[in-house]
Amino acid sequence: MEHPDCPLCRDTGGILVATQPHFRVIRAEEADFPAFYRIVWTAHVAEFSDLSASDRDRCLAAVVAVDQVLRQALTPTKINLAALGNVVPHLHWHVIARFDWDSHFPNPVWGERRRAVEGLAVARLRLPLDELDAQVRSAIDALVDA
Amino acid sequence: MEHPDCPLCRDTGGILVATQPHFRVIRAEEADFPAFYRIVWTAHVAEFSDLSASDRDRCLAAVVAVDQVLRQALTPTKINLAALGNVVPHLHWHVIARFDWDSHFPNPVWGERRRAVEGLAVARLRLPLDELDAQVRSAIDALVDA
Repeated sequence: MEHPDCPLCRDTGGILVATQPHFRVIRAEEADFPAFYRIVWTAHVAEFSDLSASDRDRCLAAVVAVDQVLRQALTPTKINLAALGNVVPHLHWHVIARFDWDSHFPNPVWGERRRAVEGLAVARLRLPLDELDAQVRSAIDALVDA
Repeated sequence: MEHPDCPLCRDTGGILVATQPHFRVIRAEEADFPAFYRIVWTAHVAEFSDLSASDRDRCLAAVVAVDQVLRQALTPTKINLAALGNVVPHLHWHVIARFDWDSHFPNPVWGERRRAVEGLAVARLRLPLDELDAQVRSAIDALVDA
């Protein structure tokens, strides 16, 4: 199942926030987008549609749980969800809180920068990242049948 | 429910491929990415997590159905799934077949162009877009409880 050349098989891929048998939740370390989490599926599969229906439900429940924590904790302008995997074809979902003041808004985080942001983006969040991580962890730990 | 200023409430938003009570499937007209579909939720909601659990299932079933048609019909290098909505905050999922030869691969379609592609990208697909649309329509029509 594990691919020796796959960075998401080999490494955590970010700050480890929560672990479940089928997936883990990590926080990306992106200075421009501090509230940026990823649900990384444990098994090395490329596509979301490679999962069984019950595993898709399990995976999406985690995506939605993180999404809801970000909305409640941060009241972002928008949540961005994506499963791309062009560079690392190991299933992972991006869950990103976006703000109208952020460096790229309304462009995708992969698009062109739109503005300079004074100071650290993280300082503009309503709560420190360790508290946000703790809320994400609680929501993931509370998932039934994760 | 309808927002007069919302382009996805007002207009179809692309080539209409399939219609169901809760959503429609359209094909984007993007020359660089010819196999680019969108599942547009009928009601004007901003976030995927605004949907009830059963509506999320319904919506994701459509996303996965389109994904699977694209994989079977085109054997793309990768499928890209995304719900962003920063510009048009009316829930829509992008389902995009990506190829290692396409103009932006492995960048996201919203990222930097990586290469010039000789001729029309659509001519490189295994089948004409009207046949692909027909396969997508059949798969959506076959969904139970869509």
